[in-house]
Amino acid sequence: MSINRWTQQRRLIWEAIKDRTDHPTAEELYQGLRRDGARVSLATVYRTLRALAREGLLRELHGPGPDRFDPNTSPHYHFRCRVCGRIFDVEIPYKDELDQVELGPGFIVTSHAIVWEGICPACREKGRDAA
Amino acid sequence: MSINRWTQQRRLIWEAIKDRTDHPTAEELYQGLRRDGARVSLATVYRTLRALAREGLLRELHGPGPDRFDPNTSPHYHFRCRVCGRIFDVEIPYKDELDQVELGPGFIVTSHAIVWEGICPACREKGRDAA
Repeated sequence: MSINRWTQQRRLIWEAIKDRTDHPTAEELYQGLRRDGARVSLATVYRTLRALAREGLLRELHGPGPDRFDPNTSPHYHFRCRVCGRIFDVEIPYKDELDQVELGPGFIVTSHAIVWEGICPACREKGRDAA
Repeated sequence: MSINRWTQQRRLIWEAIKDRTDHPTAEELYQGLRRDGARVSLATVYRTLRALAREGLLRELHGPGPDRFDPNTSPHYHFRCRVCGRIFDVEIPYKDELDQVELGPGFIVTSHAIVWEGICPACREKGRDAA
């Protein structure tokens, strides 16, 4: 769908997420939009994010807890804090060589994802790593 | 919880998954149990799998589509077919060195996961890779 044929709501939601680097959930994005006075429902936000992901404009991140959305669709890796569940971008360059691995006869590899898990600086500071 | 204090249903569900290498969903496991004549609900199967995962006896795999469950909790990698959604074990040994990466000040890494994505042999054969 050409961007100039987008509905006003879709434009609004895209504007709200396109520069975010914190991989928000639909709920987090919705709360921000409401605080800014936008008249939009959580269901619309979620449906629009899913549609934008299907069209390749966002990347959907699955994990424990609700789905998160990433406007950065170029290949890159993530770190997930196992205390707060937040996802951070990892600066390590994409390892093209991992897409050349031989997984067995007949397997075609198109990409790979690495997710590191651990504790983020904020949670570490709060001493919640003991939890 | 000690295994000899498990309910009969929990034992049944554990027996049904503990040797499977195909990472079944709750629904798939439930269908198999029903075919074998077990009297158990899908909700019970799902709840029990989640509980076994919390206790560390299963690993939960998140991705597009329903959660899958893996009785192999030792560190290993996966391949996900983007046509049928099935998950396969990958024989590549766990890269301990990836847990030593420096992600930035204050980040503690405890583990990492790699998921390759592509097309599995069965889907390739069916020519569904064109889809």
